[in-house]
Amino acid sequence: MPMPQHVVRGDGHLNIDGNFTIALEGYKDARLASARKRFLNTLSRETGIPYHHEVTSGQAILTVRTAGVDDAVLKLGENESYHLEVTSSHALLTAPNPLGAMHGLQTFLQLVTITPEGFSAPAVTIDDEPRFPWRGLMIDAGRHFQPMDVIERNLNGMEAVKLNVFHWHLSEDQGFRAESKIYPLLTGKGSNGLYYTQAQMREVVEYARDRGIRVVPEFDMPCHTTAWFVGYPALASGKGPYKIETQWGVFDPAMDPTRESTFEFIDKFIGEMTRIFPDAYFHVGGDECDGKEWDANPRIKAFMRTHGMKDNAALQSYFTARVQKLVAAHHRIMEGWDEVLQPNTPTDVLIQSWRGPKSLAAAARQGNRGILSTGYYVDLNQSAAEHYLADPLAGDGASLTPEEKKRVLGGEPAMWSEFTTPEIIDSRIWPRTAAIAERLWSAQDVRDVNSMYARLSVVSDKLESYGLKHQSFTRPMLQRMSGQADPKYLAVLAGVVQPPVGYQREELKKYDWYSPLNHLVDAVPPESEMARKFKNLVGVIVAGNASTEQIQKAKKWLTLWRDNDAKLEPSLKRSDITAELTPVSETLSQVSTIGLSALDDLESHRVADSATTQSGMQTLKSAEKPQAVLRDMVVAPVEMLVQAAHAQKP
Amino acid sequence: MPMPQHVVRGDGHLNIDGNFTIALEGYKDARLASARKRFLNTLSRETGIPYHHEVTSGQAILTVRTAGVDDAVLKLGENESYHLEVTSSHALLTAPNPLGAMHGLQTFLQLVTITPEGFSAPAVTIDDEPRFPWRGLMIDAGRHFQPMDVIERNLNGMEAVKLNVFHWHLSEDQGFRAESKIYPLLTGKGSNGLYYTQAQMREVVEYARDRGIRVVPEFDMPCHTTAWFVGYPALASGKGPYKIETQWGVFDPAMDPTRESTFEFIDKFIGEMTRIFPDAYFHVGGDECDGKEWDANPRIKAFMRTHGMKDNAALQSYFTARVQKLVAAHHRIMEGWDEVLQPNTPTDVLIQSWRGPKSLAAAARQGNRGILSTGYYVDLNQSAAEHYLADPLAGDGASLTPEEKKRVLGGEPAMWSEFTTPEIIDSRIWPRTAAIAERLWSAQDVRDVNSMYARLSVVSDKLESYGLKHQSFTRPMLQRMSGQADPKYLAVLAGVVQPPVGYQREELKKYDWYSPLNHLVDAVPPESEMARKFKNLVGVIVAGNASTEQIQKAKKWLTLWRDNDAKLEPSLKRSDITAELTPVSETLSQVSTIGLSALDDLESHRVADSATTQSGMQTLKSAEKPQAVLRDMVVAPVEMLVQAAHAQKP
Repeated sequence: MPMPQHVVRGDGHLNIDGNFTIALEGYKDARLASARKRFLNTLSRETGIPYHHEVTSGQAILTVRTAGVDDAVLKLGENESYHLEVTSSHALLTAPNPLGAMHGLQTFLQLVTITPEGFSAPAVTIDDEPRFPWRGLMIDAGRHFQPMDVIERNLNGMEAVKLNVFHWHLSEDQGFRAESKIYPLLTGKGSNGLYYTQAQMREVVEYARDRGIRVVPEFDMPCHTTAWFVGYPALASGKGPYKIETQWGVFDPAMDPTRESTFEFIDKFIGEMTRIFPDAYFHVGGDECDGKEWDANPRIKAFMRTHGMKDNAALQSYFTARVQKLVAAHHRIMEGWDEVLQPNTPTDVLIQSWRGPKSLAAAARQGNRGILSTGYYVDLNQSAAEHYLADPLAGDGASLTPEEKKRVLGGEPAMWSEFTTPEIIDSRIWPRTAAIAERLWSAQDVRDVNSMYARLSVVSDKLESYGLKHQSFTRPMLQRMSGQADPKYLAVLAGVVQPPVGYQREELKKYDWYSPLNHLVDAVPPESEMARKFKNLVGVIVAGNASTEQIQKAKKWLTLWRDNDAKLEPSLKRSDITAELTPVSETLSQVSTIGLSALDDLESHRVADSATTQSGMQTLKSAEKPQAVLRDMVVAPVEMLVQAAHAQKP
Repeated sequence: MPMPQHVVRGDGHLNIDGNFTIALEGYKDARLASARKRFLNTLSRETGIPYHHEVTSGQAILTVRTAGVDDAVLKLGENESYHLEVTSSHALLTAPNPLGAMHGLQTFLQLVTITPEGFSAPAVTIDDEPRFPWRGLMIDAGRHFQPMDVIERNLNGMEAVKLNVFHWHLSEDQGFRAESKIYPLLTGKGSNGLYYTQAQMREVVEYARDRGIRVVPEFDMPCHTTAWFVGYPALASGKGPYKIETQWGVFDPAMDPTRESTFEFIDKFIGEMTRIFPDAYFHVGGDECDGKEWDANPRIKAFMRTHGMKDNAALQSYFTARVQKLVAAHHRIMEGWDEVLQPNTPTDVLIQSWRGPKSLAAAARQGNRGILSTGYYVDLNQSAAEHYLADPLAGDGASLTPEEKKRVLGGEPAMWSEFTTPEIIDSRIWPRTAAIAERLWSAQDVRDVNSMYARLSVVSDKLESYGLKHQSFTRPMLQRMSGQADPKYLAVLAGVVQPPVGYQREELKKYDWYSPLNHLVDAVPPESEMARKFKNLVGVIVAGNASTEQIQKAKKWLTLWRDNDAKLEPSLKRSDITAELTPVSETLSQVSTIGLSALDDLESHRVADSATTQSGMQTLKSAEKPQAVLRDMVVAPVEMLVQAAHAQKP
């Protein structure tokens, strides 16, 4: 995962044992040497076989033949192809450049599995290259700061699934996270001490480049800029003084586009940042301006009248055009969110679409290139399947001309960080982002959801073993919230609940920067694997295709959930953090009781009467509502069972 | 843990909620600011409550009052005391210097637990200081290289349990791990590319200092030096050429003590390393010289005759004395293993005892200071209890005069790395090293093993949440060796087996540097918590003190183990790595069957006849023998059951 473009299965397996060696041929550089080292480290970790980095002499088991060099700075649209041949005795990886070779090494690592003869890779011939050249991941370090280890382990995850752009959202109303030496108060007053030093940002650029990943920094302007104004209030359209924002939402503060000093500041700042970030693209945000500070400032209103700007959109358009010139003067291509697209926007400006395929298609028609983020907001707790099926060229994109389609460069999962901490973030990004990575790399018609989930489960384990914590983060959180070393009954409950989808969480409860993210809703992954499996099983049962074993399995699970409440309930009172789960646990028990009864009816071909069905459905409807900001994922499949029990023929 | 010297419990609890703040008073420096930041990070991770590092204004919940400065370079014997008062409204930590303040912060973190009102710390007054000034941890990065993240997360663990010396074993026959710019071939030919750069070593020194930990480097000489000779054969007593050693054991290569060039090399090298490692102590090893290269070299034999050296010990003594002068010339105090102690050894030389309390006491009597490592070899898979009860002043140490006792500075767990990888190493060090840390910090009479295990279990969870992987490493290894996403039956088996103790592993199977460490013996912790609990339970049962619930619990466990084999066995054939477990699993089933029958006899007061008892004991005796390099830890308690069933009165 992502599925390669062309795969031909051969005969037999290549053993990966203590004799495994890898040699680099053709073009060589430090990046390839380091890729070889990381490859051997990962393989050691996968197999437990020590590979000690000796440079191979003589013929190696795996030969990596790299034809030529790529540029010092990674470029959009670089050749990322590779050819991998595995036979039962050797493997050969050829690529035009180090980037392709690195992708091929990741594919090889994914081929390695345990077999009756130990670890091995199947004989196979693979020709591969990506569908889209821009396959990103955005991490918002503004709202909740994410320390270096979070960034680095997520770059490892990106490499594993061949994502190639790290979009680093570095400033927000809630914090300015990039050290500026020219304007030290940006972090001095706007970060609470939580920021990346210039040395650290350079380290990230280097670390990413080593893994074939470009780094595009984002400094969101003219809005989402409260943190800038704490140290530099003269940039703002309002009177100030400003404080770092601690609420979530859209806020009024906006840069003052009418002052030349604003653009001088931005010019110098961009200059400083481009000395750290060599990538050709520079993201200036541009989203969600409510314009209230502009409306409230008579001088700005006067400026608009003088220059014939009819509304705030026109004012922002003026601002964006000015910033675009500054970005261009620093030899960078501007990138921005949907809002930066105006009729007069230069066509080299790259549009990141958060409003949907329609605006992405509109940008492409207007001659601008764009990438899709709608459908890929991984902080919103949608299922992997939903993300997987969102295609940059679906909807309005499908009707573009071939020329216009080429302007759709790819997409980017966006990890906004209102509800995440360094402990939780991996689970919000992974493994679902691997499904999006496949969408962006593999052919458009690779869209079998069952196959995706089966492969995602394997990749998820690999990602965890590469150092990500999306699987292991739950248990210590349950231990802490329960005060128990082995919170097994709490784990049963945790296994079938999910956080709310979309923006519902904020509607259910008030949160801000100070809100502890230490409740069950924070400790469970966005998608319950257990509940998904149960739903699939129920699907088979209501279709009348279930075996006796399958029905027994469903019963076993429902019984487990029904009986869990009696065991869990006494311990929930031990803390406020778990006390709120009492009704959640009770509801799970009730829902499961209804499910068991419906299953009995189905098994004995007894049609449930309308009264029972109606009363059951009423309970279930009410159980659909989130409790303790959690969704009970057993409810929907049990509804299916109840309806099937009522609908069957006697 | 470690248990403070004086603890007085107060009334009530201090709530740790969103309003928690911490202020630094008195002396302030960057190290304290960084300790405060790490403290808040850890507290956030513990509670899920975000603490955003704002500097507290007004009165804080926790005030840290530091009286004065400590030296830029940490020193042996520095004041490490602190006073901590927690009331239901505030907490005050006072310390004479940052070191004490940092220890107090760690104690505070350990006080925080979940309660019915959320997270809180109990009201308490603590006065604390360590029993021994040298509380170390040695990591052998020579045999298996350990990357930076391993070192750093283990330094975090050390800080949490107040260990204060990181002893970094940097050279071995199997690899030279420290970059020298003067002698680049040390790593260039002697490391396979696996070494620490000078920048990385400096980073470790800084990282450790930030956590109140001194770093003592060790360069073992004149033996354990094969890796030096690959690049610099002229240092050796033999003819060469030399290759990096890939076997385990004691090897012949030894430095040539008869050449002045040897000492010139060592002099320059020590000079270079002391510019990286500022600590007052410098470890030169000195252990395990077999002298064979000296015996085989006529020039060396002649030198010995000329200088009236009667044996190799005398030659090594000459070498050590020369090296000691070089170390002293670089303003360092020499440290070495037992062997460096000779009648004429200067009394400032520090002796690290691996031969036992007797040689440690002998050193103290001779006027030398020393530390104990015997009994603390954590790579040998002994129980936490055994380590815990080993006291630097027990045995021969007990009969020392008070003056001599003061020369026993403390101790050091030693993590030798034949059987470890970066994936496994945390489990070999933790949590047992926390028990040793308590031995070295707390009063000599704090030695209740049950209390230790109860507290160790809590500290173990905390250490895991600080980033160590001693708990979480097992599961991914079981997944990999089984190829199963949820290897639950394998996990049952894994829960009750242990690696062999001491040097038995090497007797059971041939291992070298290339041996995969990916078998069950590598994936299980050195001490099975499940088996320990079962053994305690059986202790209660055979003493006739068990409740019905306790007997039921024992039955439930034995039944689980008896029935596991039938479920596990079919999947074991899937790979060679698991196939060897077939007899292990079968034996567990047999042993448990015998245990169940003995338990029945005990429950129904039926005396088992001699024939049954004897046949059972025979099976059990044979089950004591390791299979697949694994010990079945259920055997011993079942033997207790069988004997009790036979011995009971009808």
